[in-house]
Amino acid sequence: MSTIVMKFGGTSVATVEKIRKIAQTVKSESVNYKIVVILSAMAGVTNELQSLINKVDFKAPKEADLILTSGEQVTIGLLSMLLKKEGIKSIPLLGWQIPIITDEQHEKGRILNINNENLNKYFQLYDVIVLAGFQGISTHGHITSLGRGGSDTTAVAIASSIRAERCDIYTDVDGVYTTDPNIENKAKKINKLTYEEMLEMSSTGAKVLQTRSVELAMKNNLTLQVLSSFTNQKGTYIVNENELIENEIVSGVSYSKNESKITISGIPDKPGISALIFGLMASNNINVDMIVQNISQDGINANITFTVPNNELDEAKKIIKAKYDELNYSNLSTDTDIAKISVVGMGMMSQSGVAEKMFTTLAKNKINIQAISTSEIKISVLIKKIYTDLAIQSLHDVYNLDKK
Amino acid sequence: MSTIVMKFGGTSVATVEKIRKIAQTVKSESVNYKIVVILSAMAGVTNELQSLINKVDFKAPKEADLILTSGEQVTIGLLSMLLKKEGIKSIPLLGWQIPIITDEQHEKGRILNINNENLNKYFQLYDVIVLAGFQGISTHGHITSLGRGGSDTTAVAIASSIRAERCDIYTDVDGVYTTDPNIENKAKKINKLTYEEMLEMSSTGAKVLQTRSVELAMKNNLTLQVLSSFTNQKGTYIVNENELIENEIVSGVSYSKNESKITISGIPDKPGISALIFGLMASNNINVDMIVQNISQDGINANITFTVPNNELDEAKKIIKAKYDELNYSNLSTDTDIAKISVVGMGMMSQSGVAEKMFTTLAKNKINIQAISTSEIKISVLIKKIYTDLAIQSLHDVYNLDKK
Repeated sequence: MSTIVMKFGGTSVATVEKIRKIAQTVKSESVNYKIVVILSAMAGVTNELQSLINKVDFKAPKEADLILTSGEQVTIGLLSMLLKKEGIKSIPLLGWQIPIITDEQHEKGRILNINNENLNKYFQLYDVIVLAGFQGISTHGHITSLGRGGSDTTAVAIASSIRAERCDIYTDVDGVYTTDPNIENKAKKINKLTYEEMLEMSSTGAKVLQTRSVELAMKNNLTLQVLSSFTNQKGTYIVNENELIENEIVSGVSYSKNESKITISGIPDKPGISALIFGLMASNNINVDMIVQNISQDGINANITFTVPNNELDEAKKIIKAKYDELNYSNLSTDTDIAKISVVGMGMMSQSGVAEKMFTTLAKNKINIQAISTSEIKISVLIKKIYTDLAIQSLHDVYNLDKK
Repeated sequence: MSTIVMKFGGTSVATVEKIRKIAQTVKSESVNYKIVVILSAMAGVTNELQSLINKVDFKAPKEADLILTSGEQVTIGLLSMLLKKEGIKSIPLLGWQIPIITDEQHEKGRILNINNENLNKYFQLYDVIVLAGFQGISTHGHITSLGRGGSDTTAVAIASSIRAERCDIYTDVDGVYTTDPNIENKAKKINKLTYEEMLEMSSTGAKVLQTRSVELAMKNNLTLQVLSSFTNQKGTYIVNENELIENEIVSGVSYSKNESKITISGIPDKPGISALIFGLMASNNINVDMIVQNISQDGINANITFTVPNNELDEAKKIIKAKYDELNYSNLSTDTDIAKISVVGMGMMSQSGVAEKMFTTLAKNKINIQAISTSEIKISVLIKKIYTDLAIQSLHDVYNLDKK
């Protein structure tokens, strides 16, 4: 019998009634498949736990992980109970019981190994394994968390490890949209998307799937489906490029307000400066996104602009200031009043004019572009935050995304 | 350096502020001792989790244990964080990380083994081990709970295992009282009590300590102290009889409203009937307390009366009814409108007249006695529930417990 992995997020397990609904969904799939169900904590629980941690106000990542991973323990117990009530052979398991081994990086652990043999042993006794998402155990024997959205990573890692036919990510939306429907009401659900497009859309702000989980699925050529836990409709499939009949030029418009801009001006323009700055960021686990480097007008000094997540801005600044002697810059400025708008699509690779259309449209709307970065299938620009909705609506319109 | 165990219950860890207070208490003891701290879940959390389980309404003890043991994970994380903030080398550990091995009896697991070597290894690296109470891991690798009040058992078992100098049970009262101060405002705090007295008082309703934990302390000759987490005063010491200079005739009056009475009448009076009934109860894990057997008036048939915990009454009835063919009784009746009142004291062993004084006092107050049971250091009677307060107050008075 083939296996599938089904993952349900926090809003899908928010109440016992909702978990009862999940039990029905799992039951109907269990006719055809052996199943690993991955659950998050009840919506709101992780935030409540985080607020307890904030009250302590002391950085202790090992303890934070221990606290934050307690929420899934409740939901997996409840679902397994409800499945048993439906007559299904089910067992609830925690990360360390598989085990899902991670590195020692607390609060954003990376999975090193999953014990498949153990999973297979459980499948000899049970038809459904209900597994806590978001958590693993470090090689030193301490509970780790995989960071926000880590349950997606658990789901994809398990599905890849057991070569599941499919990994279904159930959520509170019924798929991936051409853009945020809260901003553009003409946004359409996308039926199929490539990993690459989904990656660009996640990393540029479409909060449906955690970036790491899409990377992992791509690496393992695992079919993902994003679908709603509340309707019984098909969702958005995320697949290999070969499985798409025709690539859309532009598949979607995404945005992010979670980044801040750092500009370091007047740095002596000599080799190794960029390596120094971004090496520092990397070794401190700060995720740098867009990078723009200019030679300044005097031709001697350079300016470097880049973006980091808002919550890492203070640390990034501190790190740069600490290296003042080596960097020898004249000015360090930051800007949190920015949004990143991106258009994404596989078809861009073979089509010209996509960028031009984007810049023209923004210009027509008097939206100033502060920085640009491109990949083969994406163009991102930084703009002032207040223009976010206007930019999204006008770009959604100009690429005819409502006509799909 | 000697070790002590400090256990804090749910009301003592109800908020981050209260846990902060515990961190101070632990810090001051850590000057003189290596410490294992045992914590319960935040007050109310276990009840909330239980109500989620109740909503599912399906008996799945393995799952129930998994859910119920998630609460301690939060409190140990928070306390360990706060200790680290105070500069103390601390580590939070779950039951399975020691491991505390239990049998397979979910919802009331019994500890089979504690890995001391591991605890000692942790003590080479840390000064304080913050351990989740109430939980263990079965030999099959599933999380078990030790039942309500199980954190006391964890504390005493760990203290015995590492031969701690003392096990301090911090709670919301400042010691063991001669009776419930909410019923008799002249109740006095007892300074020292023997294990045997404490055992009789716990099992007859003084809810300060779980019976099993006192048994375990007695077996290991471990000094217990019951004290308040909110004041800085000494509490009640529970010690070996030899450590008491003089035994009180009566140490306290306790009560329980948590039992129901079952009467089976008209059973053929032949050998083996009691063994059959109580064998059935035992094999179904129903705790029978008082037992009274009478020959009925016809001299042929017997009546058996006994008490069971309220929440086991329905099951007990079901079991008896299922054996109707063998028991051949004429009537089965139950009564939930009862209270058990007990007077307890080591001095009873060598003093006569204690029982007589009890019966006379109750008679004077027109309180009818429905059943009597005695041990060397305790006399218990069943009465109608409405007389509970009156019985306690008059007995507390007649034994001069307010004069201690």
